Amino acid sequence: MGESRTLARKLIDDHLVDGEPVAGREIGLRVDQTLTQDATGTLVMQELEALDPDRAKTEVSVQYVDHNLLQADEKNAEDHAFLRSACRRYGIWFSKAGNGVSHPTHMQRFGKPGRTLAGSDSHTCAGGSLGMLAIGVGGLEVALAIAGEPLYLRMPEIWGVRLTGALPDWVSAKDVVLEMLRRHGVRGGVGRIVEYHGPGLAGLTAMDRHVIANMGAELGATATVFPADDAVRAFLRAEDREDDFTELHADEGAAYDVEDEIDLGSLEPLVAKPSSPGNVVTVREAAGTPVDQVVLGSSANPGFRDFAVAAAIVKGRQSAGSVSFDVNPSSRQILVDLTRAGHVTDLVTAGARIHQTGCLGCIGMGQAPAPGQTSLRTFPRNFPGRSGTTDDAVWLCSPETAAASALTGVLTDPREFAAEHDLAHPDLAPPEHSAVNTGMLEGPLPAGEAAEVELVKGPNISGLPEFEPLPDRLEAPVLLVVGDDVSTDEISPAGARALPFRSNIPKLAEFTFTRIDEDYPARAAETGAHFVVGGSNYGQGSSREHAAITTRHLGMRAVLALSFARIHWQNLANFGVLPLEFAEEADRERISAGDTLVLDGLRDALGGGELTVRNTTRDEEYRVTHRLSERQVEAVLAGGRIPLLATRK
Amino acid sequence: MGESRTLARKLIDDHLVDGEPVAGREIGLRVDQTLTQDATGTLVMQELEALDPDRAKTEVSVQYVDHNLLQADEKNAEDHAFLRSACRRYGIWFSKAGNGVSHPTHMQRFGKPGRTLAGSDSHTCAGGSLGMLAIGVGGLEVALAIAGEPLYLRMPEIWGVRLTGALPDWVSAKDVVLEMLRRHGVRGGVGRIVEYHGPGLAGLTAMDRHVIANMGAELGATATVFPADDAVRAFLRAEDREDDFTELHADEGAAYDVEDEIDLGSLEPLVAKPSSPGNVVTVREAAGTPVDQVVLGSSANPGFRDFAVAAAIVKGRQSAGSVSFDVNPSSRQILVDLTRAGHVTDLVTAGARIHQTGCLGCIGMGQAPAPGQTSLRTFPRNFPGRSGTTDDAVWLCSPETAAASALTGVLTDPREFAAEHDLAHPDLAPPEHSAVNTGMLEGPLPAGEAAEVELVKGPNISGLPEFEPLPDRLEAPVLLVVGDDVSTDEISPAGARALPFRSNIPKLAEFTFTRIDEDYPARAAETGAHFVVGGSNYGQGSSREHAAITTRHLGMRAVLALSFARIHWQNLANFGVLPLEFAEEADRERISAGDTLVLDGLRDALGGGELTVRNTTRDEEYRVTHRLSERQVEAVLAGGRIPLLATRK
Repeated sequence: MGESRTLARKLIDDHLVDGEPVAGREIGLRVDQTLTQDATGTLVMQELEALDPDRAKTEVSVQYVDHNLLQADEKNAEDHAFLRSACRRYGIWFSKAGNGVSHPTHMQRFGKPGRTLAGSDSHTCAGGSLGMLAIGVGGLEVALAIAGEPLYLRMPEIWGVRLTGALPDWVSAKDVVLEMLRRHGVRGGVGRIVEYHGPGLAGLTAMDRHVIANMGAELGATATVFPADDAVRAFLRAEDREDDFTELHADEGAAYDVEDEIDLGSLEPLVAKPSSPGNVVTVREAAGTPVDQVVLGSSANPGFRDFAVAAAIVKGRQSAGSVSFDVNPSSRQILVDLTRAGHVTDLVTAGARIHQTGCLGCIGMGQAPAPGQTSLRTFPRNFPGRSGTTDDAVWLCSPETAAASALTGVLTDPREFAAEHDLAHPDLAPPEHSAVNTGMLEGPLPAGEAAEVELVKGPNISGLPEFEPLPDRLEAPVLLVVGDDVSTDEISPAGARALPFRSNIPKLAEFTFTRIDEDYPARAAETGAHFVVGGSNYGQGSSREHAAITTRHLGMRAVLALSFARIHWQNLANFGVLPLEFAEEADRERISAGDTLVLDGLRDALGGGELTVRNTTRDEEYRVTHRLSERQVEAVLAGGRIPLLATRK
Repeated sequence: MGESRTLARKLIDDHLVDGEPVAGREIGLRVDQTLTQDATGTLVMQELEALDPDRAKTEVSVQYVDHNLLQADEKNAEDHAFLRSACRRYGIWFSKAGNGVSHPTHMQRFGKPGRTLAGSDSHTCAGGSLGMLAIGVGGLEVALAIAGEPLYLRMPEIWGVRLTGALPDWVSAKDVVLEMLRRHGVRGGVGRIVEYHGPGLAGLTAMDRHVIANMGAELGATATVFPADDAVRAFLRAEDREDDFTELHADEGAAYDVEDEIDLGSLEPLVAKPSSPGNVVTVREAAGTPVDQVVLGSSANPGFRDFAVAAAIVKGRQSAGSVSFDVNPSSRQILVDLTRAGHVTDLVTAGARIHQTGCLGCIGMGQAPAPGQTSLRTFPRNFPGRSGTTDDAVWLCSPETAAASALTGVLTDPREFAAEHDLAHPDLAPPEHSAVNTGMLEGPLPAGEAAEVELVKGPNISGLPEFEPLPDRLEAPVLLVVGDDVSTDEISPAGARALPFRSNIPKLAEFTFTRIDEDYPARAAETGAHFVVGGSNYGQGSSREHAAITTRHLGMRAVLALSFARIHWQNLANFGVLPLEFAEEADRERISAGDTLVLDGLRDALGGGELTVRNTTRDEEYRVTHRLSERQVEAVLAGGRIPLLATRK
């Protein structure tokens, strides 16, 4: 390893416990930290119970409660009690409801340069802002990491993005990542780690980098990595954690597998139009579109400056009469800092509804717009229906664009607004010393005390379903054919109706695919074993493994697609569903719902990389491939990783 | 009228347009102001559309959006758009979501000594804090008032409650009204106006009086009246409205129909145990009960001091690990005042989840506790299931008791807490000048412009159902027999599942009585015309007329009960359901579900006050009475007031 290395490669080398770091090959990494949130965490804790590790083997594992905070009925409070008891049992930190969204809160209190972080949330990659290798994975991967197992993944390519220049006034980090999405789309980062470097970094605070790293998930990237430099040191100092700082950067002359460059000075305000983060245009192009709702917050714009700049824009003004102006503070500390600085007063006075600290509307828990109404959000995602409203029209933008548009009632370029109103660009430096507060973080119990803790399982906490092994011959109908870029929000919806059942698989399964086909759950329940056929980037978005478990629960045994999003692909294999890719793109079009497919001699065929699918309805054959490692093949054949582990006990 | 008059009597005399003010007789009053909220307002606006008054005839009518703010799906946002359009159409003020709970917001911006206020919310009586005659009624009454019709009610008795002494430290207005409930229970105020007077008033601010007036609803009182004195003047001055002040009080020596006296100095912290506001005991007696949730806010403790005193108690301390500490700010102005004074920082730092401004948990929209968990709330009501959780255990208390208990995790007497922690009682004076802000209040449009406005009706806004006239002979089964004090929360639940359908009667009807009998809606849909038999105080609580409309929609044609709560009784008559009272209390026990009852010759019989019900299953007869006025009889026979008005057009 005498050669010049990228920072991403250094982080991988430092944690490599299995395999060779050659792009495309499976590697196993030691996991230092884990992060779970409540929407995925109840399953993780049930999986942990099945794995029975006695106590977390990681340096730090934290369970956040941020997703499902509405508590429309008793199920939320039950989940919170269950999660807390599991944390007490297994030596995991518990971050109470109200403490904050996992990503900014983890960054403030636990993030450490040089560490690996595995999180059961697709935006875990935000941790890369501090020079961590932070990867969103399925819940079972996190449970295994907590139990001390390595994290397995395909070694990604390293994509160096050199930043030069400095952002103009009223253009901010969100516009940087929207520019990446404009250039490369939602599949641009698949199989890659994005590593930002170059002189442009000097103008980006650690929290600005969080915005960019966070939405690496929308590019489909495995992770996003920033160096740990003075900006990171300043951030950790403000959090009373300067001791956790280590300087980290790529070696001079390090070669990237892929290269790109952005001149920050050339950027302008951007928006992602409905209903994909990849539909990016300039605000100028779409300016004047009437806006009915504006929402600030989420892990994609969580920082002090993101709210402060909005407050500076709306100060002394009033939101438009037709606009619902909603604000989701992202962490309790940041809310306190904003309150002390007077920004909360300015926002409320201008007509903002300040919601409790958490994910809320970003995960469809509240703030659903009326159908057809334009909702402008600083969120990371706008997949169809994710807001909680069928036929929603959600746009993604920076806090500057959101605030200006809240005032005018139409999509507004903040540069124009500032010029018209003689608005000077405000000083947005966060407080030198953040409102550090650990009062809502419960630390691990001592081992002896922890062993005595009993899990608190309310009536809505079901056990994990048991799945049987994959048969050697699979003959079953195709129950659903879907298009490209189908997200896990469409496979297993979140939102206020479904999310309360996240700990109850049979009940949650009733929502499976209903955004695409209302009858799928009923048909699947009747049919049993079946196939689903998809397009490119199948299963993008949220890491929730419910999208694999509920479909498997309903009998889905294999998905045939052009390509898969990384996390969902792994989740399918973890729960015993075969993810197969068409060797010939055109074959996908030959299959219709209702066709009967046959896969024969699976046990032997999966040893090689290629299989043949027979369509007995049309009397055709298709070549398909799989990218499963031996380890994964073994798990799929056993019915998933948990049954596999059970056979070994 | 040369005699000494009570203030309540003066307010009635000043607005009397029909009848004689003799206790028990029907009177008609001119209505100066109306108030509607979103949970009842969508029906009011649909009724207004049916009445077609062109423009509000009141001095001031205001539509608040405060109940259903979660926006778990598109239905909320649709309702908000419909309400705003109706306000623009009919010359009604619109208070946007986020502006505040109707009662404190109305008090801050519109309340005026000497005026009458009719509101489609049972806590409208809070307006009595400013020397108004403020009455909660069904939505149709409000729609009629907006259209210029008088408000009809039975002339109540006037109940003078003389206050002496001054409240001890850590005992506050909430404990005063809990003392009233301890003494008199939830039926103590039925048929009465409570008029507070005496030297003890000097120590109660206008907002303290709001707390007491608000929960007059829990006593079953028609209204609560306080004098308009220096405290009211100071309040209006802080709201930039000193010009709206008029001094008002009872004449010296005025005689009350009923009298009572409270020595404020003798009071101590009280709690209402589950699941009735009338289950009052001292905090001392129940101290030590483990507490899982604490919620501050609602119209029953909306004032600056209510949050400020809690902030002072928790400042520099941390809420107990097992406690979810929730704060519902009650109005945007108060939130700004609290933020400026640093109280929001202290609350958040101590672990509070600050929710958006609105009713939220008080109406079961969020913050539902886990079953069996103790939830301690500063709310007005704890009827079974109202929190959103079946088998809930909600306790009602003062902010002082709530805050101390949030810290200790057990029910705690705030006097003991203060003594143990050497806590000096803080100065709780509200700001001299409130953060007056009308930015989220849209005033009435000019008439010409208003006439052009079209109502915005999303797909979830159904029309009002049409009800046929009452037949002369009613032979039908008893479908349900219920106990005493059944609340409208049990007849037509609010909460996150049902409330989104408040504008969709057929859908909402599926929830009718399900808290008591899950099968009632299905059985009723199958049976058609039927009776329900109840006990005392049938229909207490919320004013929502959905409780009359959905039961009528399902075929309920008459209720036989021992007695009725005022608002629901009127709502039943308004929608064509016969509210009948047993002449012999013992007869109630003779009837079982499934019995067939016959009422014959109704048209003639209703002219007199007494009727005979024949139970053909048991071959028995029962004498029943009704207290309907001629006006009301005519409406019931026609199928309700709207069909009656239609016949006159």
